[in-house]
Amino acid sequence: MPLSGTSPATRRSTCRLRTNPPRARPRPPPITVAECENPSSRGVSRRRLLGGGAAALGATGLGWGIHAVAERVDPTAAIDGGLTEPFFGTHQAGIATPVQAHAQFVGLDLRPGARAATLIGILKVWTDDAARLANGAPALADTEPELAAAPARLTVTIGLGSGAFAAADVVGDQPPWLRPLPAFPIDKLDDGWGQTDLLLQVCADDQMAVAHAVRVLLKNVRSLVTVRWSQHGFRHARRSHPEGTTMRNLMGQVDGTVNPDPATDFDELVWDDGAGVPWLAGGTSLVLRRIRMELDTWEEIDRSGRELIVGRTLDTGAPLTGSSENDAPDFAATDRYGIPVIPPSSHIARAQPFGDRERFHRRAYNYDDAPGPGQTSNSGLIFAAYQRDVDAQFRPVQQRLAEFDALNQWTTPIGSAVYAIPPGVTSVEDYLGSSLLDGRT
Amino acid sequence: MPLSGTSPATRRSTCRLRTNPPRARPRPPPITVAECENPSSRGVSRRRLLGGGAAALGATGLGWGIHAVAERVDPTAAIDGGLTEPFFGTHQAGIATPVQAHAQFVGLDLRPGARAATLIGILKVWTDDAARLANGAPALADTEPELAAAPARLTVTIGLGSGAFAAADVVGDQPPWLRPLPAFPIDKLDDGWGQTDLLLQVCADDQMAVAHAVRVLLKNVRSLVTVRWSQHGFRHARRSHPEGTTMRNLMGQVDGTVNPDPATDFDELVWDDGAGVPWLAGGTSLVLRRIRMELDTWEEIDRSGRELIVGRTLDTGAPLTGSSENDAPDFAATDRYGIPVIPPSSHIARAQPFGDRERFHRRAYNYDDAPGPGQTSNSGLIFAAYQRDVDAQFRPVQQRLAEFDALNQWTTPIGSAVYAIPPGVTSVEDYLGSSLLDGRT
Repeated sequence: MPLSGTSPATRRSTCRLRTNPPRARPRPPPITVAECENPSSRGVSRRRLLGGGAAALGATGLGWGIHAVAERVDPTAAIDGGLTEPFFGTHQAGIATPVQAHAQFVGLDLRPGARAATLIGILKVWTDDAARLANGAPALADTEPELAAAPARLTVTIGLGSGAFAAADVVGDQPPWLRPLPAFPIDKLDDGWGQTDLLLQVCADDQMAVAHAVRVLLKNVRSLVTVRWSQHGFRHARRSHPEGTTMRNLMGQVDGTVNPDPATDFDELVWDDGAGVPWLAGGTSLVLRRIRMELDTWEEIDRSGRELIVGRTLDTGAPLTGSSENDAPDFAATDRYGIPVIPPSSHIARAQPFGDRERFHRRAYNYDDAPGPGQTSNSGLIFAAYQRDVDAQFRPVQQRLAEFDALNQWTTPIGSAVYAIPPGVTSVEDYLGSSLLDGRT
Repeated sequence: MPLSGTSPATRRSTCRLRTNPPRARPRPPPITVAECENPSSRGVSRRRLLGGGAAALGATGLGWGIHAVAERVDPTAAIDGGLTEPFFGTHQAGIATPVQAHAQFVGLDLRPGARAATLIGILKVWTDDAARLANGAPALADTEPELAAAPARLTVTIGLGSGAFAAADVVGDQPPWLRPLPAFPIDKLDDGWGQTDLLLQVCADDQMAVAHAVRVLLKNVRSLVTVRWSQHGFRHARRSHPEGTTMRNLMGQVDGTVNPDPATDFDELVWDDGAGVPWLAGGTSLVLRRIRMELDTWEEIDRSGRELIVGRTLDTGAPLTGSSENDAPDFAATDRYGIPVIPPSSHIARAQPFGDRERFHRRAYNYDDAPGPGQTSNSGLIFAAYQRDVDAQFRPVQQRLAEFDALNQWTTPIGSAVYAIPPGVTSVEDYLGSSLLDGRT
């Protein structure tokens, strides 16, 4: 089928998946993830929900609606809506996944009275919804199933704040780094963007897929949670640039050049091995910072000033001592007057990790919301950093940047939160968070 | 150059455009739109701004930044960031233009004391900025030129509210339909989404291009205007579906099936011929309505109920009397009990134009903003309708829908504004709105 494709997948579902045969042929009932788990789960009439004749929980990512136009497809054209990223795996998706064009980060609080059973219920619903939606299939109680048909590499990533550990009475299992970052002098934090009990991170190359997934994930648990904040982020559209192009932020800078390699660095830097906190093996942490950009004053700086502030050129993102983006910066290089080519106060000099162990994985998105009264722009960066140990990796780098970074004058952290990211699930019998919560009811 | 392409263009710039030669060769200074108009305009050091060696105001849409990665391009891959839509033409772009994935509609008010000269100044700046940005070139005072390099079919469309006519003392030239729509009983209008003096409509397939263009367009006139509202809209991502697929809204419905054809219908239905209002020849009107979707109650309706409410099937968007999306609805058809197959109260029955003259061109976008306290979603439709005559085309249809439309229970208009859309410009000596404003200072 030319409409769909499957992106390089290293992880595989253990559920038996079947694609739906064409309409004209006799059609056996499709097998769904939930049926593998529990044939009568959640009391929704699936027959009616899936009755459109085109339901599919297929490895091809094809579902409803998109069928209607398949005949019109030009087979030489790239149609990306059907591309999927695997949901099942030892790690959650959305971290090592090649970064998608759109993201929604949603911070949720448990309603008063929530207990371990409440949290387990939420995580089971989210696991089931996410598995289906990532595969291009409607969620079980999906009332807009056609919107699920083009997942566009959808991933759903779930995080737990310390409030979730308290509600479930498992504070003793909380990783030691799961607490607020220290107050940095540069911060102007607004609790409206602050720490929440739960985090949903939903990413896809199509904002339609993101919006639909967020709606499904929220409405199914709305009696149990409240939404504190919802942050939409974007990068360049898929196929707008050659694959692998580093993003630019709305200050115009190439942003995120140095990142660990999922293939070689993640076991050391990102994925927890369970040595300290056994249930977290395969999981990680997320530091989510909302950083406002002061574009009105930034635009007063000329290009060479901007390049000295960051330590990289604006056109290619090369360090000031190099000629292309991925050249290693030479912080010792000086000009003929003995002045460092890359100023020691520049962002890349100050952000430089002290040793390999301080590296972390960044997956930032731009935001550009409606300006408030008297404003021209309301823009910035949703900075998402993943690392095994917030205290050992993220904190020292952030501490140095907060103490001094030439860029600080034009960037203001206004939101900050830290989450434990449970490991992934490899089986449909499992749910995200089970290694922490099983047997706790 | 594999990085870029030009979409089918029926309009051509009358400015002499040159692409930039490769870096290695001797490079004559690039010719820019502003130089055609006024070699010393606006007092910005262009040499510094354009000094990166890769400036181009080229028909290929190539500019800064993207050069750095061009060598990595796989020539068989589709890289769409460099695609451009023509800016110059007898009509403004962004109306007949094949609809892009993202839009930002910005409503602006003139600051007190604005006069015709103020308005002319704003429109000249916007014309120059839009011409450059649509072509993949930085605006003249663009402080983030790299963000201009991938316009992704950027269009900028400018509209005038009645406040602009009052400020410029040209109320006598106001088209008769340029006034608030009558209050419909279904409306719950919030002036925060209401009529403004000016409108910017910025569309592209990449939200980065939209965000950058909006920033440039606003910052250059911020001493003259205030932003009342800024509405971000989206449809399915480019290449997520086969070209020409009708969008779905966040209720899951195929939305916008019946639209006039730019090639055959726009002269009659969309483009003003200047007979009544001479300066408007080649222009049109925009009705912009913000329509909240009541998704929480909508999801209580089952599929067959939803299909009867709209009059179309959910899977393909076919009318209930047809089998594919573009089949003409048969409103006379009845079932074996004599009951109409398409209910007379359904949305498509009520929205049916009385005669060809009541048709208009729709270019709607979804919105999905952060939910307010206690909300699960904050979603809806940014309904944009273009027509020669609001009173003769849009109003009667909207009046009938307001009187009765089965869908009204789940859709609430919360914003409404009407704008005159001046004709396009065909020469760099011209500016948008000149046919109304020239000689009025």
